[in-house]
Amino acid sequence: MNIHQLPSKNSWNELIKRPVFKREEISEIVSGIFDEVQKFGDKALFDFNKKFDSVEIENLLVSKNEIENSSNLISEELKNAIQQAKKNITKFHGSQNTEIQKIETTKGVICWRENRAIEKVGIYIPGGTAPLFSTVLMLAIPAQLAGCKEIILCTPPDKNGQINPAILYTAQLCGITHIFKIGGAQAIAAMTFGTETIPNVYKIFGPGNQFVVAAKELAQNFGVAIDMPAGPSEVLIIADENAIPEFCAADLLSQAEHGSDSQVIFISIDLKTLNETVDEVKKQIKNLPRNEFAQKSLDNSHFILIKNIEEALEFSNLYAPEHLILAIKNFENYISLIQNAGSVFLGNYSCESAGDYASGTNHTLPTNGFAKNYSGVSLDSFVKKITFQNLSKDGLQNLGKTIEIMAEAEGLIAHKNAVSIRLKQ
Amino acid sequence: MNIHQLPSKNSWNELIKRPVFKREEISEIVSGIFDEVQKFGDKALFDFNKKFDSVEIENLLVSKNEIENSSNLISEELKNAIQQAKKNITKFHGSQNTEIQKIETTKGVICWRENRAIEKVGIYIPGGTAPLFSTVLMLAIPAQLAGCKEIILCTPPDKNGQINPAILYTAQLCGITHIFKIGGAQAIAAMTFGTETIPNVYKIFGPGNQFVVAAKELAQNFGVAIDMPAGPSEVLIIADENAIPEFCAADLLSQAEHGSDSQVIFISIDLKTLNETVDEVKKQIKNLPRNEFAQKSLDNSHFILIKNIEEALEFSNLYAPEHLILAIKNFENYISLIQNAGSVFLGNYSCESAGDYASGTNHTLPTNGFAKNYSGVSLDSFVKKITFQNLSKDGLQNLGKTIEIMAEAEGLIAHKNAVSIRLKQ
Repeated sequence: MNIHQLPSKNSWNELIKRPVFKREEISEIVSGIFDEVQKFGDKALFDFNKKFDSVEIENLLVSKNEIENSSNLISEELKNAIQQAKKNITKFHGSQNTEIQKIETTKGVICWRENRAIEKVGIYIPGGTAPLFSTVLMLAIPAQLAGCKEIILCTPPDKNGQINPAILYTAQLCGITHIFKIGGAQAIAAMTFGTETIPNVYKIFGPGNQFVVAAKELAQNFGVAIDMPAGPSEVLIIADENAIPEFCAADLLSQAEHGSDSQVIFISIDLKTLNETVDEVKKQIKNLPRNEFAQKSLDNSHFILIKNIEEALEFSNLYAPEHLILAIKNFENYISLIQNAGSVFLGNYSCESAGDYASGTNHTLPTNGFAKNYSGVSLDSFVKKITFQNLSKDGLQNLGKTIEIMAEAEGLIAHKNAVSIRLKQ
Repeated sequence: MNIHQLPSKNSWNELIKRPVFKREEISEIVSGIFDEVQKFGDKALFDFNKKFDSVEIENLLVSKNEIENSSNLISEELKNAIQQAKKNITKFHGSQNTEIQKIETTKGVICWRENRAIEKVGIYIPGGTAPLFSTVLMLAIPAQLAGCKEIILCTPPDKNGQINPAILYTAQLCGITHIFKIGGAQAIAAMTFGTETIPNVYKIFGPGNQFVVAAKELAQNFGVAIDMPAGPSEVLIIADENAIPEFCAADLLSQAEHGSDSQVIFISIDLKTLNETVDEVKKQIKNLPRNEFAQKSLDNSHFILIKNIEEALEFSNLYAPEHLILAIKNFENYISLIQNAGSVFLGNYSCESAGDYASGTNHTLPTNGFAKNYSGVSLDSFVKKITFQNLSKDGLQNLGKTIEIMAEAEGLIAHKNAVSIRLKQ
């Protein structure tokens, strides 16, 4: 833990630095994997399952039986929790639908937008230390709400060739029936090119390790869209004397436990709160099963005393955190000052875990400073907005001259003619 | 012109093919340009201006005088036209702003989204054969409406070191005062890294040649967002016996004149309309100043007779055209069948030129099949949507158990603790 008291603004650029990863070696490996999958399809996937996940799979597609059986393998308590989360996420994302609004820009000229679902989308769910069924909710629910026709899910099998039942249960609850046992860059390649078993998709969503991140970037070169660029997860908390150090420490640790590269920044305008939070972190970390991750992440973290809330937000906007928690009094007065953040948690009872799981907001958010130029996943991520226009004869009469003059000034005479020929009639 | 009568669906995949470009050589050149600009800043830009645009520039920044003087160099007629277009584009894009909508997903749990402008954006306007001041309108107006703090514009100077006055006039009309005389991949590199004179930006918009397109893709590797991937412009027209062949031909030619790689597809369900449109194209092309471009583009175009409107739309959805014109009776009955398109023009008087210039819709649209997974530029392109949440003590009480159960099932105990520690209070 690095503690900084009232650091000068000159030093801020140093404090907002993220870890930098070497891309080249990974890019080369991923590019090789793409070649194999494009050439050999399913066969390449079987080989990669063996090579990377030490498992021989006969059927990439998870069977109906496996999906149906998943419900028996998890507790009623967990099923109820997943259902409550689904209800909230559905309610919030459902509210993001926009009505068609026809605008008459000039008399007789009517313009509007209509949403159309992206027809084929792919969801990637990583394996590894945590079975991220919550991410299934965050991606499958808006995909369903948007009306995507084909929603597929890829996730790596365990050593026995199985998928975690909570992931299967959540997927089927959200209407996904095409689940494939394949992980890593090879899963992204399969969704990019399609194989005998796995259909190609138009947009790929979901988190993953550096290979998956590099694969999603590479997929873009083949015309596939992705949810957003990615990086390690992060939280920035701004606290004043009304913050509760125990709560703040717990929130910091809930971020730190994600992985050793997680980013954690705590800003306080009150020295006592700062010191007590540091002490609380030291105390709470002892009992965490994932405390090795958390400790490594905290080693790179910053605890910063800053003069006032305005300056704290100035720092935060420069850092552009994925998660921003305002553990301060009268937080409502400061919302308008927030410029760059993925998702914001207001007050002492809005812990990040709420948004991670069940409050209704999406947890797929821009990290690594991308909150400066990207939004988190929402219903919008699963649709295209198509513009429409209808000009009546009078409408073109009212606007025609303007178009003709502009087209001519750009030297595009055929553009002009398309109007002139109509006006002549 | 290639004419196909009732081609079988098996042959459709051949008909929807776009021209393929060699990327590797271009990528290497662009990557070299990025290196130079990153290392040498302005000095590299001066050198590239000399090398690529044969011009020695002392000040990259267009002077106040040059901007103010631009108004004297263009006609009142053109100024009025630009102003009417601005009014319509402002009206339509202004209507895309969304109200904040607070959703109580569970009692005491309130979630909402708020828009924040992307603070620093860059607009690229190509030089070359047409001075695209209309693109300045299409990008600067929504940037201003969104509230972007810093909007800069890069465009290559002519041989005399000048920028077309219509571009300068339009830029200042839309409130842009930082205009830089630099084009090509070097302009994109400058906006990516920043130089002594040109500030870096968070998102880059605008069309360009293959070097600019490759440079925008490369910019993404350095954390800069871009409007969308790009390709040659294209139109697909669906006509029936109510279409007017003269109008259709004029629309096809207005697309074909863009460049020799433009894509033009004409589908008719009526043979007479098809044949008459072909004849009209041959007639109208003769008088076009850019008929060389148009002819080359038409050589690769397709004129297709298809059985009915439903099948025509099936073809169109597979092709995913940038511009789709429905020159058919009762077009309103077919809107719901449109799945993939950038912008749609309905009826005989909605020519593509209207949307290109002045009706109000944006003309920066997904080409090259990207209408399957991308939207055109809109107000949304200039903002991030940040989610907010506020849980009251009761709210967390109502949702806490659910979060605890889910976090535990994912093995993320610190996530659970962040709730438990609050519930204990």
